[in-house]
Amino acid sequence: MTGIDDLPIRDELRGKSPYGAPQLDVPVRLNTNENPYPLPEELVRRIAERVSDAARTLNRYPDRDAVVLRTELAAYLTRTAGYKVGPRNVWAANGSNEVIQQLLQTFGGEGRTAIGFEPSYSMHGIIARGTGTEWLSGPRHDDFTIDTEAAVATIAERRPDVVFICSPNNPTGTAVGRDTVVALYEAAQAAKPSMVVVDEAYGEFSHRESLLPLLEGRPNLVVTRTMSKAFGAAGLRLGYLAADPAVVDAVQLVRLPYHLSAVTQATALAALEHTDTLLGYVERLKDERDRLVRELRALGCEVTESDANFVQFGRFDGKGGAHAVWQALLDQGVLVRDNGVPGWLRVSAGTPEENDAFLDAVRAVTKETNR
Amino acid sequence: MTGIDDLPIRDELRGKSPYGAPQLDVPVRLNTNENPYPLPEELVRRIAERVSDAARTLNRYPDRDAVVLRTELAAYLTRTAGYKVGPRNVWAANGSNEVIQQLLQTFGGEGRTAIGFEPSYSMHGIIARGTGTEWLSGPRHDDFTIDTEAAVATIAERRPDVVFICSPNNPTGTAVGRDTVVALYEAAQAAKPSMVVVDEAYGEFSHRESLLPLLEGRPNLVVTRTMSKAFGAAGLRLGYLAADPAVVDAVQLVRLPYHLSAVTQATALAALEHTDTLLGYVERLKDERDRLVRELRALGCEVTESDANFVQFGRFDGKGGAHAVWQALLDQGVLVRDNGVPGWLRVSAGTPEENDAFLDAVRAVTKETNR
Repeated sequence: MTGIDDLPIRDELRGKSPYGAPQLDVPVRLNTNENPYPLPEELVRRIAERVSDAARTLNRYPDRDAVVLRTELAAYLTRTAGYKVGPRNVWAANGSNEVIQQLLQTFGGEGRTAIGFEPSYSMHGIIARGTGTEWLSGPRHDDFTIDTEAAVATIAERRPDVVFICSPNNPTGTAVGRDTVVALYEAAQAAKPSMVVVDEAYGEFSHRESLLPLLEGRPNLVVTRTMSKAFGAAGLRLGYLAADPAVVDAVQLVRLPYHLSAVTQATALAALEHTDTLLGYVERLKDERDRLVRELRALGCEVTESDANFVQFGRFDGKGGAHAVWQALLDQGVLVRDNGVPGWLRVSAGTPEENDAFLDAVRAVTKETNR
Repeated sequence: MTGIDDLPIRDELRGKSPYGAPQLDVPVRLNTNENPYPLPEELVRRIAERVSDAARTLNRYPDRDAVVLRTELAAYLTRTAGYKVGPRNVWAANGSNEVIQQLLQTFGGEGRTAIGFEPSYSMHGIIARGTGTEWLSGPRHDDFTIDTEAAVATIAERRPDVVFICSPNNPTGTAVGRDTVVALYEAAQAAKPSMVVVDEAYGEFSHRESLLPLLEGRPNLVVTRTMSKAFGAAGLRLGYLAADPAVVDAVQLVRLPYHLSAVTQATALAALEHTDTLLGYVERLKDERDRLVRELRALGCEVTESDANFVQFGRFDGKGGAHAVWQALLDQGVLVRDNGVPGWLRVSAGTPEENDAFLDAVRAVTKETNR
């Protein structure tokens, strides 16, 4: 039988495993930062209507430039993120992963470098490597905030072509302040100039305002977003970016033509019609997130400040480390995420019932575990 | 105002334009090889049902491995292409463009080369370059069939990592014989070994049988397909490949996680339920394609033998060349494709009425044009 290593794959792929959390069927799944609230039935009906319309011309290619969708995404950002953008500022793709891949194909690639401040969203580094971009790991403080001074120094020294700033940061939940973004942007411009990508996948869950207004006067800044979390649509795979129109023009040089299907565009437009309802769920999740922080602390856990729909908790430095606790929670029917940050685990904010089940499991597990 | 060239884009992108045919709103659009038959209303209803079901869990990530869809695609291939494959032989992505991109990320990339026999589907070369793979252009005979002897010699000399064989070939319509594929595969193995990708996007329209059975005993062979043409679903963006399971395992090392949305999977599954109806449209289109060949020849045009749902016709070597004829047909309300093959244009087989309008336009235009 032929195995992967019998094929002429690229050397750097040898021995690697596909990225992805285990998809396990357990009662309480709090491992992938999904929104626990299903779409309201009224929106499901509207999706069926819009997709039916799209299906009637499915024999034709979709709008290659997704102009109507980009117009509605721009209106949403303008209304909720404190800065006016139009369709020429916005670009959409199959998940923010594809947006990031297009950015790296345009501004990274062979002979270029990208930096992130780790631990952070590991796909930044994986997609960088997948596009031939050398990946650099930048520093954070012990409390997981970015060490601005050290980051500026690293950018000045390594002169990366693309700088990733994830805010709120996955998997730690840490928001990044405007001053830090401005300092890193200025360092990145002094060094090359370079692109700075602010990944706001969890932006709607933050206590702070969006970093979107920083786009003003900064043509090399990009803010990425997703409908996976705040819109409760992880299954839809709709990511987008806002930036100077020149950036939107530039990524079109590398995007696969007709990358965004007519059914995806139709479904996203239906969801955007129900923004207010979906943002109501976001408010509930923020309350639950804050409750998780409080209750985990009351249970004696350390908890990183969170601006996202998940919470990083620990520290599990005893026998077996965080992974032993991960397994013990799974044995209780609760799936959380071990992102490989030594001593820490990540739990997504679920429904009140799911969070209660999780807290009960933590209570049971930490009783027996040497923390 | 910032322009693309003010941004730190990759040097090889400077001065480039995004790929894509003009999307013009004219009465008769025969330029992108779309299937002219809308999906039957019964299928539209089924898509709405399946997408509604998917939308009820849209807050969750889709099945990352699309197992149900791959099972149904394998059953379709087994039934129609003369060779038994299972889900472990099949992989799906957002259009065959994304399948090809994943193959090139796995088997091509920086320091590697890919070859196609041109004129052929220009995205092979564009995606190669987009993944850092050096692109080589191989030879064809004057009648647009592959010059097997010259191709084998080129492979032996240049030792490419990936060999593309498009059959039926876009934009010429030319099918490739089994003997040629076998000869090129053997040459590619002797040289390195290398991957051979047979692009059968138009396979269902061919007079000949699929090349799929060649997978037997050839682990470095891949056959790609799409639902855009035969399934009348260009708007869906569903491409797939069949190959040894090791190839399917290998592309999962580079695929973006959850690349295929739940609505895409649901819509594709609905379409696969209606395979027989849709393949009925394919038979109509094959008849119309053969009529276009006959009638264009009767009008004095040269026509390349076609196994696809389009026809290459010419030769327009007079003043302004093929592009002048393209413009003259557009002035008559008929949009065909100028693929840049000197002297030739490409027309997609439309409905009988669209094809009549096209033939009338050719009649009117060739009267006045110096061919």
